[in-house]
Amino acid sequence: MDERVREHAAVLVEWSARVDPGDDVVVDVAEGAHELAVAAAEQLGEIGANVVTTYGSEEFSRAYLRAHDGEFEAGAHELALIENADVYLRLGGGRNTAATADVESETRQAYSTARQELREARMDTDWVSTVHPTRSLAQQAGMAYEAYQSFVYDAVLRDWESLAEKMADLKRILDEGSEVRIVTERSDRPDTDIRMSIEGRTAVNSAASVAYDSHNLPSGEVFTAPADTSGEVFFDVPMTINARRVRNVRLSFEDGEVVDFAAEQGADIVESVLDTDDGAGRLGELGIGMNRGIDRVTDNILFDEKMGDTVHLALGRAYDATLPDGESGNESAIHVDMITDVSKDSRIEVDGETVQRNGVFRFEDGFDAEP
Amino acid sequence: MDERVREHAAVLVEWSARVDPGDDVVVDVAEGAHELAVAAAEQLGEIGANVVTTYGSEEFSRAYLRAHDGEFEAGAHELALIENADVYLRLGGGRNTAATADVESETRQAYSTARQELREARMDTDWVSTVHPTRSLAQQAGMAYEAYQSFVYDAVLRDWESLAEKMADLKRILDEGSEVRIVTERSDRPDTDIRMSIEGRTAVNSAASVAYDSHNLPSGEVFTAPADTSGEVFFDVPMTINARRVRNVRLSFEDGEVVDFAAEQGADIVESVLDTDDGAGRLGELGIGMNRGIDRVTDNILFDEKMGDTVHLALGRAYDATLPDGESGNESAIHVDMITDVSKDSRIEVDGETVQRNGVFRFEDGFDAEP
Repeated sequence: MDERVREHAAVLVEWSARVDPGDDVVVDVAEGAHELAVAAAEQLGEIGANVVTTYGSEEFSRAYLRAHDGEFEAGAHELALIENADVYLRLGGGRNTAATADVESETRQAYSTARQELREARMDTDWVSTVHPTRSLAQQAGMAYEAYQSFVYDAVLRDWESLAEKMADLKRILDEGSEVRIVTERSDRPDTDIRMSIEGRTAVNSAASVAYDSHNLPSGEVFTAPADTSGEVFFDVPMTINARRVRNVRLSFEDGEVVDFAAEQGADIVESVLDTDDGAGRLGELGIGMNRGIDRVTDNILFDEKMGDTVHLALGRAYDATLPDGESGNESAIHVDMITDVSKDSRIEVDGETVQRNGVFRFEDGFDAEP
Repeated sequence: MDERVREHAAVLVEWSARVDPGDDVVVDVAEGAHELAVAAAEQLGEIGANVVTTYGSEEFSRAYLRAHDGEFEAGAHELALIENADVYLRLGGGRNTAATADVESETRQAYSTARQELREARMDTDWVSTVHPTRSLAQQAGMAYEAYQSFVYDAVLRDWESLAEKMADLKRILDEGSEVRIVTERSDRPDTDIRMSIEGRTAVNSAASVAYDSHNLPSGEVFTAPADTSGEVFFDVPMTINARRVRNVRLSFEDGEVVDFAAEQGADIVESVLDTDDGAGRLGELGIGMNRGIDRVTDNILFDEKMGDTVHLALGRAYDATLPDGESGNESAIHVDMITDVSKDSRIEVDGETVQRNGVFRFEDGFDAEP
């Protein structure tokens, strides 16, 4: 076994999920993630955790979903499994990113809606989502397999403690701020000029560990839950939503709601996302990427949204960690991230003060307060 | 997909497990059983069952078990999953039958013992165990892959209703009988002459369906729970126990207990099985194979024990279906089957009357009451 697979599993189990002896752990293993699962098994055995492995097969899901009449219900057995779990590790890495492309959008939505309670239960565990590099993901990224492996391990095997310290600076700014404005003005694409309230919200220093309320490996972003969004935003980073390509999405917001949208590719997908439920047309997340180990777009949201010099906004569900106790924030069966490049002709303002210009933060070398 | 895979899934879900709409189903998918799982997903989706897929990876288990200190406990989450399941489908079919060969016997036993409650809970579901033909299983059987596929589907895709009628004849004989004696006298191997009580026990017509208290696909055997076993038995069918080869085992019984044993190969495995717990030295099952679609030994207990012209005895746990209500029968963390060929110079007697000679039953053409 490649030693990096073992190192990945060690970061996952020790740094990210903080698994303790006797913890009841679910490991969800994608079709192509076998090797990472075996490495995680070593870690979990050594710690003395109790493990159930589930099989996260997209081909299984496709066959099930296409055969079903669409009246889904959440199984009591699945809910019992998750409600009794302390830790949930999702090991992604499939064999075909388009494996479920021919599942009808309504079926997908109905299934997702029926599983809301399961998702909530999973969010109550110490859950972590990661991926094992597969040839399918390399292909999605337009990269050779070995090069993609290096890319993944560069993103995952980082000095997380040191990155966490840096991200704490941005968290402090957002926690003290009330309004965020994001502006990009580039001649080759539509402008972005969008404002949102972050009053009373707590930003998450997403350092790839449940100890930081951070549940992705890799991570490397600071995110919060915006409200009352208004303005226009153009997402120029290509992405895949529900196994379909989506490019150059533009959203217009008024009073926190999407009032208009367009897309060069995949407009029907954006529409079906927006139609899922009431919360699907409002933002659940504003995230600012700070992982400079991720140096290219690979068409995988787990990596893309963490990339330095990008900002992402998610339609749908807000994460509890960003909200005051007892406040539920935006609710939805979906959480769909979309990304915009802020490396050029861009700025992020908090309460009218520029905190990032062209990808460089106020607390970093090379920052210019004025254009 | 090979149409036989779909037919296999249909027999599994409809005939064997009798899955109903809304049933909470666990599908345990071995490393090599992906294709059968996808075919089962179609069936389960069409019926409208709620499905959790678990990943039955032996390489995962090996890594976990070898790293663990041996103080195992059953996870509350796993117990909750199984206790809330209506149906449990185990889709076997690995990539290496020796995948766990380097796990210490004591570790294996400790793990098995810690999981007793989970096993009991699984037995309370409508569980069915089957296998998808893999290259590893073909290799174990000493067969080419395509020939092995044909072997498996010949055994699985049968007229189960008609076989069930024939097996009902043997069940009637055993239900009315009090003592079974099995005798083989062949010049090329040690004799078998063993007696056991079946008084008050109910034989199971194992027609590969939970409707018959039968939980294996393929099946095709009639079995019951013996007691007070005495005599000598020689198991001449080679087998694999705990991923190790075992050949030509001889067991001596007195008052229901193994008092002496020997084996040409794997004596240490037999010893570790017998040492598992108190019930491991007593029989939990007497089974008589009646599936003549299984025409050769393939070193896989699921098939071998169902073969026509064989009898098998299992050390360890008895199945509830064979016992009067409220009686628990032999209890053990293990259930290890061993098989003897009764095609030649052999007879099975019930209460002193010969019911099978040289593999031919009393109710079949060609039966000779006298040698």
